Amino acid sequence: MRHDVTAPLPVPPVAGCRRKRVLWLRDPRVPDTRTTTSGRRVMASMLDDCSLLALVTILSVLEQAYFSLQVIYARRKFHVSPPRVSGNEDFERVYRAQTNSTEYFSMFLGVLWIAGIFFSQGLAVCVGILYLCGRYKYFKGYAESAVKRLSPLYFSAKMLWILIAMASVGVLNQLSSQYLGYNPMMAVKSIL
Amino acid sequence: MRHDVTAPLPVPPVAGCRRKRVLWLRDPRVPDTRTTTSGRRVMASMLDDCSLLALVTILSVLEQAYFSLQVIYARRKFHVSPPRVSGNEDFERVYRAQTNSTEYFSMFLGVLWIAGIFFSQGLAVCVGILYLCGRYKYFKGYAESAVKRLSPLYFSAKMLWILIAMASVGVLNQLSSQYLGYNPMMAVKSIL
Amino acid sequence: MRHDVTAPLPVPPVAGCRRKRVLWLRDPRVPDTRTTTSGRRVMASMLDDCSLLALVTILSVLEQAYFSLQVIYARRKFHVSPPRVSGNEDFERVYRAQTNSTEYFSMFLGVLWIAGIFFSQGLAVCVGILYLCGRYKYFKGYAESAVKRLSPLYFSAKMLWILIAMASVGVLNQLSSQYLGYNPMMAVKSIL
Repeated sequence: MRHDVTAPLPVPPVAGCRRKRVLWLRDPRVPDTRTTTSGRRVMASMLDDCSLLALVTILSVLEQAYFSLQVIYARRKFHVSPPRVSGNEDFERVYRAQTNSTEYFSMFLGVLWIAGIFFSQGLAVCVGILYLCGRYKYFKGYAESAVKRLSPLYFSAKMLWILIAMASVGVLNQLSSQYLGYNPMMAVKSIL
Repeated sequence: MRHDVTAPLPVPPVAGCRRKRVLWLRDPRVPDTRTTTSGRRVMASMLDDCSLLALVTILSVLEQAYFSLQVIYARRKFHVSPPRVSGNEDFERVYRAQTNSTEYFSMFLGVLWIAGIFFSQGLAVCVGILYLCGRYKYFKGYAESAVKRLSPLYFSAKMLWILIAMASVGVLNQLSSQYLGYNPMMAVKSIL
Repeated sequence: MRHDVTAPLPVPPVAGCRRKRVLWLRDPRVPDTRTTTSGRRVMASMLDDCSLLALVTILSVLEQAYFSLQVIYARRKFHVSPPRVSGNEDFERVYRAQTNSTEYFSMFLGVLWIAGIFFSQGLAVCVGILYLCGRYKYFKGYAESAVKRLSPLYFSAKMLWILIAMASVGVLNQLSSQYLGYNPMMAVKSIL
């Protein structure tokens, strides 16, 4: 229901508006509950838009905590006492697996959230869970031998690149609609 | 257009709703300032909801920066020039203390914010500050001897688990109210 | 005031207000598109407020990914097979450059976003890009010799301190206006 900008204002009603007034016109001394409600609704809808991202974040933190505990167990098993981190190759592999996962952890969280907010929460969450599965297999594989780390490493790297691609498309689309007034993702959706 | 709180309610118009109309019905050619104000109010209220989380984040970054500087001083003191990170056990302990804190830093930030947004900002901030105190004692203890790192390490690990628990409860509650239409936290509050 | 979905629409008022009613009074059985639109507008305006921060985050993730790939190439070039990380000083320098950048990565992301949201997105993005340039030069310099890492290291440390200062000012200003009712940044702006 768009209005022609040059159209005159609609003619005001002439009689019998008293009761409606009570319904519609807000007493300025009373807090604007409607706005507050709307505010809460907006915030609730934003929590909706990132609750699954938050769930995947918690899962990824639990995975990292699990890796850290495995390093502590490996220290005991292979008699490598802190602060040493070398001397036994079995321990070194477990330690490197955890360190490498930590290095990628911040990158993963960053692109997971940007892909989820600017592109699609559902897709970001699916790829994020696959990444975490890949990381788990990588850790288990690396703990056995350096060769067994390779295929899950490539898999999780691919998942990370997909997240980076989704995040990039989402942000570039947002910047385009914000500064050029053209929303490519919306245009593609309307064609499909 | 602020109103004196003691002022009487404006007399409702008896006939001819022309003046009210100007108040109520938005001319579509004029930008909707009410919505904009509401938008700003929503955003302001969101900044309120995370300002303390942001403060704890800045404190944690300062703590990490302090740890990094201590490693640089330890390099000079124990004559361990880069890129070497081993060879002197006194240096190795300081270095490991910083590395370990860095490994946990992303996990800490992730659960701090999720616990603060989905569960309770106040509680998350309190536990977060205790975690940072534990980390400080851990660093100081580890710099002296490997044994002295243990008790603050266990303490900060406990704080991290509490944050993980708060984050999990908050997110599961959000998912339940979002997909099952049942909000357990609200139900518990109404019983208490 | 929930309405039975099968109930007929309320009878429109008999005189003078019929057309307005259709325009103004929302049928409670129909979703409130106005609030939704306002909600979307609020969310869209929030995406506007962090789209450049998201872009810088993606760039920083790409930089970290580039550093990680360089470590893999250096492993091949200097014949340092995993899980070893020492034994060849040329490799060690590349490895340390990447590790050091990773250590600062979470701190950088944390203060970048807080400075961008609580202080100024434009300034945070500019300083953030300078930080990433400094990090790139640091990596390239460190790969050549330990001495060449120093000046870009100092530069990127300065950029990080500027971000920390901006984040601190923004958050303290927010806390002041939230708890003391006084907004120093707004006061300074009104003087200028």
